[in-house]
Amino acid sequence: MTFDAQWLRLYVVTDSALCGDRGVAETVRQALAGGVTAVQLRDHEATTRELIDTARELRHLTAAAGVPLIIDDRLDVALAARADGVHLGQSDLHPVDARRVAGHGLAIGHSVSCIDEVEAVAEWPAGTIDYLGIGPVFATPTKPNAAAPLGIDGVREVLDCCDIPAVAIGGIKEVHVAPLREAGAAGVAVVSAICAAPDPAAAARILLAAEEIR
Amino acid sequence: MTFDAQWLRLYVVTDSALCGDRGVAETVRQALAGGVTAVQLRDHEATTRELIDTARELRHLTAAAGVPLIIDDRLDVALAARADGVHLGQSDLHPVDARRVAGHGLAIGHSVSCIDEVEAVAEWPAGTIDYLGIGPVFATPTKPNAAAPLGIDGVREVLDCCDIPAVAIGGIKEVHVAPLREAGAAGVAVVSAICAAPDPAAAARILLAAEEIR
Repeated sequence: MTFDAQWLRLYVVTDSALCGDRGVAETVRQALAGGVTAVQLRDHEATTRELIDTARELRHLTAAAGVPLIIDDRLDVALAARADGVHLGQSDLHPVDARRVAGHGLAIGHSVSCIDEVEAVAEWPAGTIDYLGIGPVFATPTKPNAAAPLGIDGVREVLDCCDIPAVAIGGIKEVHVAPLREAGAAGVAVVSAICAAPDPAAAARILLAAEEIR
Repeated sequence: MTFDAQWLRLYVVTDSALCGDRGVAETVRQALAGGVTAVQLRDHEATTRELIDTARELRHLTAAAGVPLIIDDRLDVALAARADGVHLGQSDLHPVDARRVAGHGLAIGHSVSCIDEVEAVAEWPAGTIDYLGIGPVFATPTKPNAAAPLGIDGVREVLDCCDIPAVAIGGIKEVHVAPLREAGAAGVAVVSAICAAPDPAAAARILLAAEEIR
């Protein structure tokens, strides 16, 4: 599946602990039913073998829904599981290295948390990354070692420095969706708002509907 | 560098904690001076970015010595750092997947701890893996969750079931080198015996000389 900025409209990032007894695959199944436009598998506790087994399970679900599957950090898992993309943070593989290894068949996302990090991206060869994750917008318990929150105005300032499609992430709730899109984000990425929801499909529908509320 | 069974003669596996203040790169530099025939970078604590930075540092040292660098678990890091090989345990990427992703430019090693695991390898396409790591020979504090120790006779039994070059690993000291080679191992892999040694070069020389002692 070739990258499309529509992927970024409502992008769910998995968290095994927040998915709880329901499990990651069932949570993703419900989130897909609710209309999420991308799924990122993130799990820093699993072994590589466990991670790829989960990736393959999610791959079936996302492919059936026509939605991309993106793997956090692990290019090896993304390639082995034939995922659609890999998401690379500041402490992950360098996107320039990842692009060299992966070629152009895989989407590459990259996290930035400040203007300096966006300006660094401009130095890389064109086409190195497909999209940016900008955040945290707000403080979030799902990523305790994250950078300082940007707030919506901070996201706007970062977005003004780049012309790569970007998804905003970090503590985002329904009420923030319209302001973030108005600030220039192609969409929002959420962890808790869907993974910890009693009804992930309903949570996804509410977040999608919130695009229109001003 | 194309795989050669000579790589397995004295194969050092790094351990950041055991290398201590001396650091991994300096320990490897001294081990190479002592004649180690392969270096495996193993670090499950580091971020991907830290791991690749270390891999690149070791790559310079090993390339200058004409010795292969192998990365534990992480095919992405092995490919990005242009290492010579990747070593895959039972909970890592499946070697068949890794071979598909990596092609034939990279050596693949695989850990087995019993006859069942060696028999599984025989089912894979020819050329999937280049070598086996067999162990633990003895109980070892550097891998607390390892399988039950095989002993030298157990290693011999596993070796008798396969025709892939194999390196023995797990609590190996000087006195075990000759019996393990006599049992059919192409060589020995060590962690503590070199990483924790006050003089890694001398420790490597002693292990190499121990091949001849019966």
